[in-house]
Amino acid sequence: MGSAQAAEADTLTVAQLLEYQNIAWIIWGGVLVFFMQAGFALLESGSVRAKNAVNVMMKNYTDMCIGGLAFYLVGFGLMMGTNHSGFVGTDHFMPVALSNMDWALMFFQMMFAATAVTIASGAMAERVSFIGYAVAACLICLFIYPVFASWVWGGYFGGTGWLTELGFIDFAGSTVVHSIGGWLALAGILVIGPRLGRFAPDGTPRLIAGHNMTLLALGGFILWFGWFGFNAGSTLSITGNIGLIAVNTFVAAVSAVVSYMLISRSLNKAILLSDSVNASLIGLVSITAGCATTTPVFAIIIGAVASVVYILSSQALLKFKVDDVVSAVAVHGFGGAWGTLAAGLFYTGDLFNLSRLGVQALGVGVALGWGLGLGLVMYKLIDLSFGLKASRLHEQRGLDYTEHAELGYPEFQKQMFDSKSLTERHL
Amino acid sequence: MGSAQAAEADTLTVAQLLEYQNIAWIIWGGVLVFFMQAGFALLESGSVRAKNAVNVMMKNYTDMCIGGLAFYLVGFGLMMGTNHSGFVGTDHFMPVALSNMDWALMFFQMMFAATAVTIASGAMAERVSFIGYAVAACLICLFIYPVFASWVWGGYFGGTGWLTELGFIDFAGSTVVHSIGGWLALAGILVIGPRLGRFAPDGTPRLIAGHNMTLLALGGFILWFGWFGFNAGSTLSITGNIGLIAVNTFVAAVSAVVSYMLISRSLNKAILLSDSVNASLIGLVSITAGCATTTPVFAIIIGAVASVVYILSSQALLKFKVDDVVSAVAVHGFGGAWGTLAAGLFYTGDLFNLSRLGVQALGVGVALGWGLGLGLVMYKLIDLSFGLKASRLHEQRGLDYTEHAELGYPEFQKQMFDSKSLTERHL
Amino acid sequence: MGSAQAAEADTLTVAQLLEYQNIAWIIWGGVLVFFMQAGFALLESGSVRAKNAVNVMMKNYTDMCIGGLAFYLVGFGLMMGTNHSGFVGTDHFMPVALSNMDWALMFFQMMFAATAVTIASGAMAERVSFIGYAVAACLICLFIYPVFASWVWGGYFGGTGWLTELGFIDFAGSTVVHSIGGWLALAGILVIGPRLGRFAPDGTPRLIAGHNMTLLALGGFILWFGWFGFNAGSTLSITGNIGLIAVNTFVAAVSAVVSYMLISRSLNKAILLSDSVNASLIGLVSITAGCATTTPVFAIIIGAVASVVYILSSQALLKFKVDDVVSAVAVHGFGGAWGTLAAGLFYTGDLFNLSRLGVQALGVGVALGWGLGLGLVMYKLIDLSFGLKASRLHEQRGLDYTEHAELGYPEFQKQMFDSKSLTERHL
Repeated sequence: MGSAQAAEADTLTVAQLLEYQNIAWIIWGGVLVFFMQAGFALLESGSVRAKNAVNVMMKNYTDMCIGGLAFYLVGFGLMMGTNHSGFVGTDHFMPVALSNMDWALMFFQMMFAATAVTIASGAMAERVSFIGYAVAACLICLFIYPVFASWVWGGYFGGTGWLTELGFIDFAGSTVVHSIGGWLALAGILVIGPRLGRFAPDGTPRLIAGHNMTLLALGGFILWFGWFGFNAGSTLSITGNIGLIAVNTFVAAVSAVVSYMLISRSLNKAILLSDSVNASLIGLVSITAGCATTTPVFAIIIGAVASVVYILSSQALLKFKVDDVVSAVAVHGFGGAWGTLAAGLFYTGDLFNLSRLGVQALGVGVALGWGLGLGLVMYKLIDLSFGLKASRLHEQRGLDYTEHAELGYPEFQKQMFDSKSLTERHL
Repeated sequence: MGSAQAAEADTLTVAQLLEYQNIAWIIWGGVLVFFMQAGFALLESGSVRAKNAVNVMMKNYTDMCIGGLAFYLVGFGLMMGTNHSGFVGTDHFMPVALSNMDWALMFFQMMFAATAVTIASGAMAERVSFIGYAVAACLICLFIYPVFASWVWGGYFGGTGWLTELGFIDFAGSTVVHSIGGWLALAGILVIGPRLGRFAPDGTPRLIAGHNMTLLALGGFILWFGWFGFNAGSTLSITGNIGLIAVNTFVAAVSAVVSYMLISRSLNKAILLSDSVNASLIGLVSITAGCATTTPVFAIIIGAVASVVYILSSQALLKFKVDDVVSAVAVHGFGGAWGTLAAGLFYTGDLFNLSRLGVQALGVGVALGWGLGLGLVMYKLIDLSFGLKASRLHEQRGLDYTEHAELGYPEFQKQMFDSKSLTERHL
Repeated sequence: MGSAQAAEADTLTVAQLLEYQNIAWIIWGGVLVFFMQAGFALLESGSVRAKNAVNVMMKNYTDMCIGGLAFYLVGFGLMMGTNHSGFVGTDHFMPVALSNMDWALMFFQMMFAATAVTIASGAMAERVSFIGYAVAACLICLFIYPVFASWVWGGYFGGTGWLTELGFIDFAGSTVVHSIGGWLALAGILVIGPRLGRFAPDGTPRLIAGHNMTLLALGGFILWFGWFGFNAGSTLSITGNIGLIAVNTFVAAVSAVVSYMLISRSLNKAILLSDSVNASLIGLVSITAGCATTTPVFAIIIGAVASVVYILSSQALLKFKVDDVVSAVAVHGFGGAWGTLAAGLFYTGDLFNLSRLGVQALGVGVALGWGLGLGLVMYKLIDLSFGLKASRLHEQRGLDYTEHAELGYPEFQKQMFDSKSLTERHL
């Protein structure tokens, strides 16, 4: 246990105490963002069939672990290091001696990187090979995410990102984290194609129901819970407008759910739990960019429109036979894009400024190009080298059995398994 | 990301820093109270049959979303607005410009309102129609909860609630949140009646076991976790006695569980997980009113007695054929009443003051009248207009299939479903 | 709700504000450590067969409740009370009047005690009797844990623990909490023996797969989440190096997972979710002692080696027919020992100091003697008096049915049960 720092306390200034306080605030936020990993894992695991329940959670564990290491070693420097060009950080790789505030900041940024990388895991679920996925997670945290992030949030140790220089606003990462994650997910889906049987020969989508709706909803609650740390923590200081951010974050999400429900009912469709959870998530994604610079009434509008974006984009993706198991592309990709535009439109004190909207649109477009473009290249190269798509046999049997020698619910799954053969594959 | 407010830091006073600090504390508490929604959802979902697992979680999502919007638009003003009469707030409806502290407070109060409204969802589970439930959630957050809350915690922008004026103590809401929620739940149950088969023709209750005890227990843990934010956050300031509150909150809950176990064992009955979880919850409910004004030894007594209240009240309710799926009336209604009386009895420095106890009893009685009375009127009117009770056919098939076109565990439920017919009902 | 302490705020000094702030920080940490109980419960419940899912969670609830009471009444005084001998505290039993800071500290220590006691529940799962387990939990929190803890963290109200006096370092409890918990678990296993069928007559271990891998993984995430409060909260002050601690905690865990994966793959074995979760946990256990006094690069090494410790020790235990359902002995016992040694080896500014390492080794050995020795005596005595091992019949039928009259998943378990006979055993 730490000894009381009594002597120091007597000479502490208010500014120093605020600094300590801000560090504690950033840790609070970062720990909540960490917990979002559990939210993603549950949401995604609940959305797949039982035969892939283990595999999806495994991917969440893996991308966070591999990605976290990669971010510490290289990504942090690329993102936050001295950035005179505006395009990439150039120092602070694998740091060993930082101030306590800098460590806190690294922790917070690490959790953001882990969030960005995990978005793809659900979208590509049920048919991606474990090794291919792990390599991609490493590359995303090593290079793709931190370089883009350096354009907006970079230059902590000197310099400014070029998008920020232009006036681009993305307070907590609608674009930097969510759109980038979403477009990477889209790239992955395009490379590996849909699951077996997801589309009829004529292209009609067939329902492949997730195996556990209660876990899915719990995942939604955990994500929402963590999002308060994501958004309010992004002030990096308790002197930021954290009260307003918390209210904006909450009302945007609830408004998105109510909006989805009203649309669904007015079309005489059933109100689904899975879609309600996704509606809350797209509400959260879309308020993330502007949560510090708008007011609750606009947050309600942003959330309400977000559900329309969700419905239209997920239906459009289905038309193109994009099989996104958890609608990550719609929620994070399109939701992030809408949120970033909305942050420009509903900027407090400067509403509907078209030049501001133009800068926001530029950032949205650049993110799409970077995430989807680099993503396609990366996933294609992985496919050609390590292999990205699970074999048809593995996909049919389920990746839990074939890749992990472990079943999610051995007593309840009809699938026969021979415990001896499993054990032989264990350590 | 927020820019460092370096210049401001240099001129900050200690009082200003405390204010910032208190805002962060309130946000911390509010975020934990938010997470209690997940606790309720799991506890309630685990307590119903698998055929209603989705429906219950859906209701938790819905009441928080609709209720949250309603509270922002109207409820906050009624509760916290200028309150010269002592009976209702009259301004600050749908606020757009508040101080950061006021936004934080609104966020905190919103989460409390969402807690109050969600208590009924479990009690009325498995046979309430979705639309009827949603309308009730809206009305509770719009009017019933905020008006009662204004009597105790109102007048933030001027004035004082009439119960507080009389000396009524309810620090964190044993009565305001839990009893009101519990009595509303009772009203709902009385209007819709018991589930099919819950009572034999001679009135003997029949066990309808919940489908998932691990999720139920996880729900209990999450509620308990969030309760620390509920109680300690209610100081609204780090200068409050938050250490004492945390200890009181914990020991009251553990004492209630131990008390339940000893009673159960001494009666030669099995010690149930579901009852243990409920015992911890009634311990938490009953310490909520007095957690800041009593000491741990009394907290232990309060918790131990709370389990007796739980056992007696839940058995009495069964005698009257009140079918409360999660014992919400016993835990929140009766537990809240006991906790409010106990806050008077065990008031530090003024123990067993009968006039104090009288004021507490008055508050308890008023809450019963307001919650049960208005609740009966509201649910009856909803029943006559939108319909409150699900049809017998829907109840038999399960509300997941009939109301949401989505099953909780499609691979594990014996119930046949035709995925094509489900899909047609999806968006 | 608390009234604003406006008058006080004006005369507050910076040192006083820091004190308030530290109390809030300790509460934040303690609440996260509380939530680790849910993590243990899920991890353990997911690791057993469905027929014991309720029983395991019940044990987690029970040990926290009984242990919490015992710690308040007696343990806190033994651990933190005036400790002139260095061997045990002698006052502050069942305190009723403490400062707010002291209450916060008690809350924090209570949560640590609850963590230590709960470690054994998973290890001994599926064949331990409820009453015997409950008695052990009481004794551990009453005496075994607090006395050992007093040697390292004791003397808060005067005096110093003898191990601390010697220079022993265990910042957040690799030894005090985790090894003690792990060695107690080992003692319990040695007394009750393996589960029926766990080992073939020739000693070959047979796989008994856990019933729910998604809950197991969720438990892992929750434990990890809570661990940030465990480690960073142990500074007891925001002026501690909490940023560094958060980074160290995270990278040690991710490094352990990556290390396990690389080892597994290089041996051509499947990468299991259960082992990955355990790898992250042993990474966390092993960074706990030194998280404040090492740097991330060493944290990465500590985590990577921890996975080797996990693999070797869990395989060695199997050789000795030690049936540890969740590998608690390997993760907490051996992991704690390794972490404590590592805290000496990788001490910033004084690397590889052999005399320091000697003191650490002494503490590790003493913990082993105390935990395993007293544990064997205690469990043996309980076995002879209350009974510790469940009967063969109860073990076969599952403890949920036989001890709790409640099934985890009644609609999904093949096991027949007669709801009338269950109900008769309910209150």
